Amino acid sequence: MIFDVQVEVLLRPGIADPAGSTIERSLPTLGFDGVRDVRVGKSIRFSLDAADEAAARALAGDMCARFLTNPVIEDAVVSVAAAGGGS
Amino acid sequence: MIFDVQVEVLLRPGIADPAGSTIERSLPTLGFDGVRDVRVGKSIRFSLDAADEAAARALAGDMCARFLTNPVIEDAVVSVAAAGGGS
Repeated sequence: MIFDVQVEVLLRPGIADPAGSTIERSLPTLGFDGVRDVRVGKSIRFSLDAADEAAARALAGDMCARFLTNPVIEDAVVSVAAAGGGS
Repeated sequence: MIFDVQVEVLLRPGIADPAGSTIERSLPTLGFDGVRDVRVGKSIRFSLDAADEAAARALAGDMCARFLTNPVIEDAVVSVAAAGGGS
């Protein structure tokens, strides 16, 4: 069975985020006020072949821990949905 | 009123995604099979001060078009939620 997986990787709270800080400093000069706490991370989407949703979630979590993220400085949020069933 | 905004920026379909291709080629050598269509994008989260959700959504969409994405090669998905009201 095919599952659509989204992994959102964000820097852990307290880790400096230079890209986010740059965006936050730049926005007021473009006329966008009231924007705070900008954090820039990665979004990784892929299709995964697994027996069921629990297996897909376990496999995706394992991939995160071993390959897609640096668990020392990054947190990952994994979303799994059956392929074709919405986002 | 404060809103939590998430902007997911992904390359448009058909645009070459070297990072995604590299991940896809590497995973089988680590023992992860059955992974396809890997796409790597950005996830940008921030807090926004706006009068209501429609205003927050319009402001975030405008920021995307002018600053956060390159609309020639990237698509953006904007999610807006009242701060503290879940993700």
